[in-house]
Amino acid sequence: MARVNDHYLQLPGNYLFSAIGKKVSAYSAVHPDKRIIRLGIGDVTQPLAPAIIEALHRGVEEMGRAETFRGYAPDLGYEFLREAIVEGDYEPFHCQIDADEIFISDGAKCDSGNIQEIFSADNKIAVCDPVYPVYVDSNVMAGRAGVYDAEKGIWSNILYMPCTEYNDFVPELPRKTPDLIYLCFPNNPTGAAITREQLQEWVDFANRTGAVILYDAAYEAYISEGDVPHSIYECPGARTCAIELRSFSKNAGFTGLRLGFTVVPKELKCNGTALHSLWARRHGTKYNGAPYIVQRAGEAVYSQAGRAQLKEQIDFYKKNAAYILQGLGEAGYTVFGGVHSPYVWLKTPRGMSSWDFFDCLLENANVVGTPGSGFGPSGEGYFRLTAFGSYENTVEAVDRMKKLGI
Amino acid sequence: MARVNDHYLQLPGNYLFSAIGKKVSAYSAVHPDKRIIRLGIGDVTQPLAPAIIEALHRGVEEMGRAETFRGYAPDLGYEFLREAIVEGDYEPFHCQIDADEIFISDGAKCDSGNIQEIFSADNKIAVCDPVYPVYVDSNVMAGRAGVYDAEKGIWSNILYMPCTEYNDFVPELPRKTPDLIYLCFPNNPTGAAITREQLQEWVDFANRTGAVILYDAAYEAYISEGDVPHSIYECPGARTCAIELRSFSKNAGFTGLRLGFTVVPKELKCNGTALHSLWARRHGTKYNGAPYIVQRAGEAVYSQAGRAQLKEQIDFYKKNAAYILQGLGEAGYTVFGGVHSPYVWLKTPRGMSSWDFFDCLLENANVVGTPGSGFGPSGEGYFRLTAFGSYENTVEAVDRMKKLGI
Repeated sequence: MARVNDHYLQLPGNYLFSAIGKKVSAYSAVHPDKRIIRLGIGDVTQPLAPAIIEALHRGVEEMGRAETFRGYAPDLGYEFLREAIVEGDYEPFHCQIDADEIFISDGAKCDSGNIQEIFSADNKIAVCDPVYPVYVDSNVMAGRAGVYDAEKGIWSNILYMPCTEYNDFVPELPRKTPDLIYLCFPNNPTGAAITREQLQEWVDFANRTGAVILYDAAYEAYISEGDVPHSIYECPGARTCAIELRSFSKNAGFTGLRLGFTVVPKELKCNGTALHSLWARRHGTKYNGAPYIVQRAGEAVYSQAGRAQLKEQIDFYKKNAAYILQGLGEAGYTVFGGVHSPYVWLKTPRGMSSWDFFDCLLENANVVGTPGSGFGPSGEGYFRLTAFGSYENTVEAVDRMKKLGI
Repeated sequence: MARVNDHYLQLPGNYLFSAIGKKVSAYSAVHPDKRIIRLGIGDVTQPLAPAIIEALHRGVEEMGRAETFRGYAPDLGYEFLREAIVEGDYEPFHCQIDADEIFISDGAKCDSGNIQEIFSADNKIAVCDPVYPVYVDSNVMAGRAGVYDAEKGIWSNILYMPCTEYNDFVPELPRKTPDLIYLCFPNNPTGAAITREQLQEWVDFANRTGAVILYDAAYEAYISEGDVPHSIYECPGARTCAIELRSFSKNAGFTGLRLGFTVVPKELKCNGTALHSLWARRHGTKYNGAPYIVQRAGEAVYSQAGRAQLKEQIDFYKKNAAYILQGLGEAGYTVFGGVHSPYVWLKTPRGMSSWDFFDCLLENANVVGTPGSGFGPSGEGYFRLTAFGSYENTVEAVDRMKKLGI
């Protein structure tokens, strides 16, 4: 008699964004006349840049001719893309990363959900609080989280590292030693950045304790100033303690095209076993590569034309972020993030709970954001807005929130 | 201190096709003048059909304009594709499958590797022997396989169901009761088909014992005659015991485009828990959808033009299969499969081992096939050839094998 994975049953309720989607649908059904502005889920709205569109068309043409048709991709991804990544993302920051340490995938969500699989079920994980839900949920599914305390919203076997305004949303080194440490900078959801010096402390801590850092740098393209590292491999010692996850979703608008990659340095070992070979084995066994045409699109991200066009696109979203930050600040909201990040993290007014503020905003301003508490207990009393809307919608959303008079 | 997933370390050697790739590369390096014909890995060679190419170009155009740009796909996949699947794959065979029981993915390899995750780690699995390695390896990685006996090539906790010429490559019902049963028909690697009556016995067995059948129908498009079911849902009772996995790789040449789907009927429950909700949770948490443009390409597979073009493509591969079957039969080989399948399964001559025959064929005929033993102990003494080459290469490969004089 088949039995299900009980760990799945422990997961409370729905995935955060599914829950939001349902609330919004229910509201729309009752109020079909209301124009809802969505600054909730971190989905982009700008169309793909011309250089990427061209690359896709070229790739499609190739797939239609026998001489240039491509079947299964190489296990780690096409060399042309892995080399473009090394030249575009790592060499400029003097990170020593080889093309064969890069694993092309269909996105950072999948990678950040799957990466825990190569570790033992009894590893103890540490996460920032608030945190991108996928890190926690994928570990719950694997049985690594312990027991859920519904009242506190925490798992007994997960080490939560609070990130609040009191530590500028950068966690302190934990007193208990975790085995796996999830870090995401620039941070989702708080929009906070980490300095090179702060990140170096984490690298040193991991090397000292034998922990592995899973470093999510999906928002790297939004970094605005010099002191913030673009990659964890800018820190000496990271090659022996860190895996880095990257995405094409937020720097190039690939949320509907799907492309990402994971870097596993060959020196990174646990008790003598190279994690590179384990991740390679997972790729070879359970994955079959990103589409050829999408890998060509990824290559175009690093072309001269692609870079120029994408700089404009990112500047567009950054202008939105700056508008939200300034507008809500003027309106009396306490706001964070939004400088190195497409996310603005705000304190709910008058001590409202995150979900109460969600409902209030949906009903009174027809604006959708993401309740901070959905990202963890320390997110309670906060709220996330994204800069991924159109400029007009962003301006109108801020305008409506100002008029709320909170 | 981080610890790795020890189950990974139990996996012997490399993934089969990586091992073959290395042998071929090594031979080519020493003999750069030899023209090698690859009938090993099941990768297609015909370019994408014009209707699919058109749909891709249209999709790319949409992604380049703000009004039609698409970001994250719906969790289960786009409705237009799920409905096309119901109409194209299920209604014609009178299978009662709803669009919201279909989960779009990036391919059957990923799905067949991931599906075990929703089941408890102590479920006992049964597999055909020989078998597609992903079923076994993904269960080894999850700790479900027990201990490996390198001499016999079997895992202590897996129930192997021998499929040999003595049972026409269709397994008998096991005496011990498994919890999860992997079946693949038309079969990879043997090319054997199952009759509706035989499959009904499995459905009845699963319902009687509470087992779940994971039915891989990736090669459905190659079915040639009436008595062979295209879907397990043609069998009454399958909705309460079977999950079906499907691919666009072999019917439409999507090996480099990546698209597949899994059907989980809502009635399918284990101890009261609907597997549909567990698989939905996995999709929502660890996956982010197949690319919009690829889902549009999938829709074109079911268009009138797409169907006509793909029938031609499949007929092309079937002609290759028929040529191999007839040619090698005439040359004195004992051959199976190749009728409802793009795979021909042959007995190695003179009792050679599968790998010895692989080496012999590579060195003396410069033809690459797949050693049957790579698929499991009952595959020893057999060898798989695929019909996915060009017609010219297929003819030449058969010709070379005839000349071997074995």
